[in-house]
Amino acid sequence: MTIITLTTDFGQADGYAGAMKGVILGIAPAARLVDLSHEIAPQDVRQAAFVLERAVPFFPQGTVHLAVVDPGVGSERRPLVVMTPQALFVGPDNGLFTFALAMPGSSAWEPDRPALWLPDPSATFHGRDLFAPVAAHLAEGMPVRELARPLTDPVRLERVLPERRPGGSISGHIVHVDRFGNLISDISAAWLAPHGHRWSCTIGSVRIAGLSPSYAAAERGALLALVGSGSTLEIAVRDGSAAQRLDARAGCALELEPLP
Amino acid sequence: MTIITLTTDFGQADGYAGAMKGVILGIAPAARLVDLSHEIAPQDVRQAAFVLERAVPFFPQGTVHLAVVDPGVGSERRPLVVMTPQALFVGPDNGLFTFALAMPGSSAWEPDRPALWLPDPSATFHGRDLFAPVAAHLAEGMPVRELARPLTDPVRLERVLPERRPGGSISGHIVHVDRFGNLISDISAAWLAPHGHRWSCTIGSVRIAGLSPSYAAAERGALLALVGSGSTLEIAVRDGSAAQRLDARAGCALELEPLP
Amino acid sequence: MTIITLTTDFGQADGYAGAMKGVILGIAPAARLVDLSHEIAPQDVRQAAFVLERAVPFFPQGTVHLAVVDPGVGSERRPLVVMTPQALFVGPDNGLFTFALAMPGSSAWEPDRPALWLPDPSATFHGRDLFAPVAAHLAEGMPVRELARPLTDPVRLERVLPERRPGGSISGHIVHVDRFGNLISDISAAWLAPHGHRWSCTIGSVRIAGLSPSYAAAERGALLALVGSGSTLEIAVRDGSAAQRLDARAGCALELEPLP
Repeated sequence: MTIITLTTDFGQADGYAGAMKGVILGIAPAARLVDLSHEIAPQDVRQAAFVLERAVPFFPQGTVHLAVVDPGVGSERRPLVVMTPQALFVGPDNGLFTFALAMPGSSAWEPDRPALWLPDPSATFHGRDLFAPVAAHLAEGMPVRELARPLTDPVRLERVLPERRPGGSISGHIVHVDRFGNLISDISAAWLAPHGHRWSCTIGSVRIAGLSPSYAAAERGALLALVGSGSTLEIAVRDGSAAQRLDARAGCALELEPLP
Repeated sequence: MTIITLTTDFGQADGYAGAMKGVILGIAPAARLVDLSHEIAPQDVRQAAFVLERAVPFFPQGTVHLAVVDPGVGSERRPLVVMTPQALFVGPDNGLFTFALAMPGSSAWEPDRPALWLPDPSATFHGRDLFAPVAAHLAEGMPVRELARPLTDPVRLERVLPERRPGGSISGHIVHVDRFGNLISDISAAWLAPHGHRWSCTIGSVRIAGLSPSYAAAERGALLALVGSGSTLEIAVRDGSAAQRLDARAGCALELEPLP
Repeated sequence: MTIITLTTDFGQADGYAGAMKGVILGIAPAARLVDLSHEIAPQDVRQAAFVLERAVPFFPQGTVHLAVVDPGVGSERRPLVVMTPQALFVGPDNGLFTFALAMPGSSAWEPDRPALWLPDPSATFHGRDLFAPVAAHLAEGMPVRELARPLTDPVRLERVLPERRPGGSISGHIVHVDRFGNLISDISAAWLAPHGHRWSCTIGSVRIAGLSPSYAAAERGALLALVGSGSTLEIAVRDGSAAQRLDARAGCALELEPLP
């Protein structure tokens, strides 16, 4: 009863994710299918990578994560399997799994046995014709070396990393805006620990003095900074949308300074 | 193979519901997961309560209903389990389960064994860190008294109840607007039975004379009143949206009068 | 462990699809439930038929496809089961399953045993009260003749078929617009094969010379024509939306001419 998660930019109207599930269940009838997101913005590989990275730690050992955000489908873009001690990842070799490749003990593989895929794969839907069968065979217990060959140079997303400056300030970025309009940054809670809640946080022309322990600690409509559920700094509006309030989006810069 | 339903305001883009499912399947690998809705409007506890109340009767005995619409997460807001003869409910103690607490034989419990939750629960995502593990342990058959203590004063939503007036008229409210733009009221079909379809229905400045037996009994584009699938009065437009036509929303008043 | 797929216009906010799943699991506890789409445009039978037709071939033998887009619910509109050598289809008799009825060896049946349905079916939600129980009993292995009687005149959608003209040109139509804004036509790849990629494609006032092998073969933002994953001609914009670019929708005409 291996779990297979699905992360795509296919939306939920057209039956594309459903067709993938039909293919999977034809090969791995006992697989447990869990949708992570089919609402990734079209072709937004970074957003998919973020959603995946945040959800993956909460799945049991041995889960297969199938992700298809694939602007290069039909080109020379290679298919990819990443194996970590914890999980398997299947999808296009376009940087989606950069975080998994960075895990200790990970390895990269290129699926190379078309006999395991659907016959005559289309040039536009490898999710259904190639990645779904590969994920299903892995879920059925087929060893990765039987369906793929080692790959030494998988594609990695370049990330602008957050920085700690002399004097103790930190600069980072918004990396995701969620449904609530919360602005999630790449600044780790571990970097904040030495000063507790005594940080000021500047985004655009707005400065928030002090971190809050929770959304509920602020008044309705108040802007706040806090450590979110992924253990990074987050900007929020209590019962509202920080993205709307600040007209902010993924990529916006964020500056933190310790308060005296 | 206990069923766990999920009702949240998390949306379907960010992987939040997926992370909850990962946690559940780590504890209860055989649980059947059924999404009721992840499209509850952010922080709209009443809407979630409505959707849940309408769907719950259609699930088998013993189903666990996990619901997380939780504006008070991280505050003193207590966690809650409600046990009824038919089902178990897990979520924040904020009124979400008012209808379940009103069922004969129901009891309220406060989860009090952090050892069963995820370690170091975040202050912003109890759905994943606390409620998902509690629901999963219940689905695995752990008795509620082993993970929670009795709670005597759970929070209940106040509702303005519909009223029967002298002379036979009824006043009620729209309590939900669905995807089709149908305006669903709190006026029970049982109250309407004595006069059959001979009721006039007034909403805002619009009056509908007589109830229809079905959507299809009206002409395309016609406004109609009928008894909906939850056995309450509903205003609809055949093949259209009554919410748009009437610019109406949850909370709007509705007046019914028996026709001669 | 029979698979039941679900295709509806119920959306995902109101818990309607969830209630259907509760009913199904009460009758068929081991059924595998797969959502194809709940985002069919309200009452759009043609769109549902398209989504279903494209996804169905990818499901294992014996799958039950439950589809409810049902503007005629509560009228004399009959319920329908279609049996093909490959699958079973359950839903309203309004043309949804025209493609299945056209399959060799298919037969049509009208469910006629209300004792198997929910008691007192509502006039507005046969998906929950009638079709879900019928699908569940079929998934449990009940023979179709035990829950339905033969039907000789099921409703079929009329389709304007694509045409091959003297001189080799082809006229067809856009039949679906997907989440990416891809314009999917009814012109089969088999008709295109004789001239390979040497076709010009005209939609409105725009002409595209030559077919592309894949999205990725075009430059970012370029308009292209290609054979899509359903083996029909499709108009797309690389990393963009052809529907937006051309202001096109389902029903638009398309003309193909062989290039010299």
